[in-house]
Amino acid sequence: MNSAESLGIVGVGLMGGSVGLAARRTGQFARILGYDRRTDSLHRALAKRCIDEACIDLSQLAHRCSIIVVGTPVDRIAESIVRLSQMSRPGTLFTDTGSTKAQIVREIEADLPSEALFVGSHPLCGSEKHGPDAARADLFEGRWILLTPTDRTPPIALTRAIAFWQSLGGRTKVLSPEEHDRILALTSHLPHLLASSLAGMLPRDWHEYVATGFRDTTRLAAGDPEVWSAIFRANAPHVLAVLQQFQARLDEFREAVETQDATTLVRLLAQAKGSRDDLGS
Amino acid sequence: MNSAESLGIVGVGLMGGSVGLAARRTGQFARILGYDRRTDSLHRALAKRCIDEACIDLSQLAHRCSIIVVGTPVDRIAESIVRLSQMSRPGTLFTDTGSTKAQIVREIEADLPSEALFVGSHPLCGSEKHGPDAARADLFEGRWILLTPTDRTPPIALTRAIAFWQSLGGRTKVLSPEEHDRILALTSHLPHLLASSLAGMLPRDWHEYVATGFRDTTRLAAGDPEVWSAIFRANAPHVLAVLQQFQARLDEFREAVETQDATTLVRLLAQAKGSRDDLGS
Repeated sequence: MNSAESLGIVGVGLMGGSVGLAARRTGQFARILGYDRRTDSLHRALAKRCIDEACIDLSQLAHRCSIIVVGTPVDRIAESIVRLSQMSRPGTLFTDTGSTKAQIVREIEADLPSEALFVGSHPLCGSEKHGPDAARADLFEGRWILLTPTDRTPPIALTRAIAFWQSLGGRTKVLSPEEHDRILALTSHLPHLLASSLAGMLPRDWHEYVATGFRDTTRLAAGDPEVWSAIFRANAPHVLAVLQQFQARLDEFREAVETQDATTLVRLLAQAKGSRDDLGS
Repeated sequence: MNSAESLGIVGVGLMGGSVGLAARRTGQFARILGYDRRTDSLHRALAKRCIDEACIDLSQLAHRCSIIVVGTPVDRIAESIVRLSQMSRPGTLFTDTGSTKAQIVREIEADLPSEALFVGSHPLCGSEKHGPDAARADLFEGRWILLTPTDRTPPIALTRAIAFWQSLGGRTKVLSPEEHDRILALTSHLPHLLASSLAGMLPRDWHEYVATGFRDTTRLAAGDPEVWSAIFRANAPHVLAVLQQFQARLDEFREAVETQDATTLVRLLAQAKGSRDDLGS
């Protein structure tokens, strides 16, 4: 990679900010430019050296970068990339860090100029923390980065995106946008929905009765409401499907508790324990 | 407290074993005796010095101890304490570490000899770990220990139980057995049920798509199935009640996802976040 190239980051929160910090460590970019519609995030990202330079609009950033990573909430990714691609140099690589993929990829591929390169990405290292203050240079270290090319993705886009994420310490894995969304609905979106449903039930004066179990189970509920509202809407069909499966499991449990059916309870709990033990700590 | 007194522990798992380790540190007991129906647990508790002496039956332990703590699964606590009380010296204090209280307290009070002292306890420091190998001398340090006297509890029983748990580092709190069960159904039993329902849904070949969020949300599912089956059955009415409330919340979320209702989603998520943020990390 030409060391005179610049990296652009749109949305300098936890993900975008961490991309900047991790990329700086590699020394592969001459300059790291950032844009965020919240100027206080831009200032904090600059202060933390996630970026070298804050751009005041997308166009300022678009034509100066060879790779542009969009780390905004999922409902603004497609629009940002399409706009950026119309102002960028030919051969600019676009990718994102969104937690959903099918809708984003579909919208971008419908409008992307033929000379722009795009492949969707999703680093599996989210957190209930957010904003540039939570950014870390080692966020991607050893973590899975899911890449979601389609049959319209130029091979060079995938190759460059894989090299980029690996240079940041990530391990890459390729799957289709639809498969991604189907799997993440269970492994990420449903847990968030459950954590939020449970956290919202706790009366304030019961805090003293809460031990580590409740804290662990509800930790995700501290996530950004706007970010997660957009994720649930973008992945609605798969979220609703896993919610229905979950509902069926919960009904089994409820029936066993209602009928004092120890055998079924132990069987359900043992199956869950086996699954959780396999996963590891 | 007379330093010639002995402490008895029935069920030397995580809780019972930790009671032994924590009590040893205080130096207040001449001897710590243990009983467990699993001889391998007894051996491990001895090896780890949770107990000084392993008893081969309850009677051997009953008449030598001034305080007896029962740390068995909840479905065996009442029976053990009633049997022990029939063989013990007058004035022996009995307590337990069970995660449910109303049924246990009711059964014990129905059959306890008048010269025996009993008050129910529940240390809020459970874990998905279990067995004496997980026992720790500092398990109760700064943690809440809930005590559940009734109007039949002799004041001296409560006084002694409070002093005992405080000597082990715990902070004590008194409430009725019914109030305890109503609160813990939400703060402990429901989270376990949700964690288990979710953990059981994960296909084995999806482990690479799991990040910290799923791990946190399902951590409780690694708990002992027999122990938790007994808890759900003992606290069935309250567990079913909170499950119904949870169901209502989940339905609100589902409807908002179905109708792409961003306003409601953000409102629900923000309320949950507020509640979780208040709780602290």
